[in-house]
Amino acid sequence: MSTESGTRRRISPEREAQLYGAVLDLLREVGYDALTMDAVAARTHASKATLYRQWGGKPRLVVMALTSQRRTRPDEVNTGTLRGDIRALVLAEDEETMAERSALMRSLSPAVHHNPELLQAFRDLLINPSLAELDVLLERAVLRGEVAAGRPALRFVPHLLVGALVTEELVGDRLPTHAFLLAYADAVILPALGVPVPDGNG
Amino acid sequence: MSTESGTRRRISPEREAQLYGAVLDLLREVGYDALTMDAVAARTHASKATLYRQWGGKPRLVVMALTSQRRTRPDEVNTGTLRGDIRALVLAEDEETMAERSALMRSLSPAVHHNPELLQAFRDLLINPSLAELDVLLERAVLRGEVAAGRPALRFVPHLLVGALVTEELVGDRLPTHAFLLAYADAVILPALGVPVPDGNG
Repeated sequence: MSTESGTRRRISPEREAQLYGAVLDLLREVGYDALTMDAVAARTHASKATLYRQWGGKPRLVVMALTSQRRTRPDEVNTGTLRGDIRALVLAEDEETMAERSALMRSLSPAVHHNPELLQAFRDLLINPSLAELDVLLERAVLRGEVAAGRPALRFVPHLLVGALVTEELVGDRLPTHAFLLAYADAVILPALGVPVPDGNG
Repeated sequence: MSTESGTRRRISPEREAQLYGAVLDLLREVGYDALTMDAVAARTHASKATLYRQWGGKPRLVVMALTSQRRTRPDEVNTGTLRGDIRALVLAEDEETMAERSALMRSLSPAVHHNPELLQAFRDLLINPSLAELDVLLERAVLRGEVAAGRPALRFVPHLLVGALVTEELVGDRLPTHAFLLAYADAVILPALGVPVPDGNG
């Protein structure tokens, strides 16, 4: 592997962003199943050999393209309080971007469930890293004494966040807005973790 | 409409159950998009005219078939406590049935999002009635004094329930079990509603 990596051509961050943008465009246009490495190669004027060498295949390329869209990592948010961190996370992405990303993720859902390699790529590159980042944010709240170390709701915070994002459209017939997510955090996430919410927001 | 309903032939509950069973089988075999009224008619030896007269079309027929699978309506559970009601609801369906139903609902998700008529049928026949039934269950807890009338988490209970069901497979790499759902209710739903949980279960 060391000799191979010695001869591997590096891809610049700009070129990588351009490739990921093209992958996301194709994903929106044709969906996961119909997206081919040939089409990515043609649209980005890259060789298929480069794409395979760099990403190993379609599942990892697509998931890395999705991962590249994330603006803010939970572990990098550090306002000094859990409520502040959650609010900062919610507000880090504008509502339109949030809606577009939700639609894209949702369009991938059937493929994820029928394609073990894609599911594995999701777990390895997106889900597990995000869970670990969220754990850092929550662990800081535990260390500050805001949340009791053994609080049972700690392990369900991912379910609470995902539930808020996926359910509002179906239950509430509208996309989740910033106002909705902030109200949900104050009404559900913080009380479940035993964190007091300022009067008038609980 | 009254003259038409006067000449409408009634379908027996047994025949209806048989039709819904066939629709669900077809749904599992070919998916929503490829499911045709012709195929339903052929498999059930029904005339397409009957199917259209009774259900109005594929979206309502499919959603009614899914709705027919529900064993227990939330408003019919009445144990005397909110915690008891939630536990009874969770345990009303065995884990295998729960998993099968989740898989079927998930397989429909892309169609729901691309087909306004199917989404409308879901809202009219499944989502809104379920929300109303859940409200009855929650309203009883408010009337008993278990939950404060204006408790903000009340409006988010549907999000909490759906979040638990859809996220565990992705986050936890396993289907939601009874044990998971009961622990989630004690850790999240009841604390968010301000309902005390017995020691050792919180």
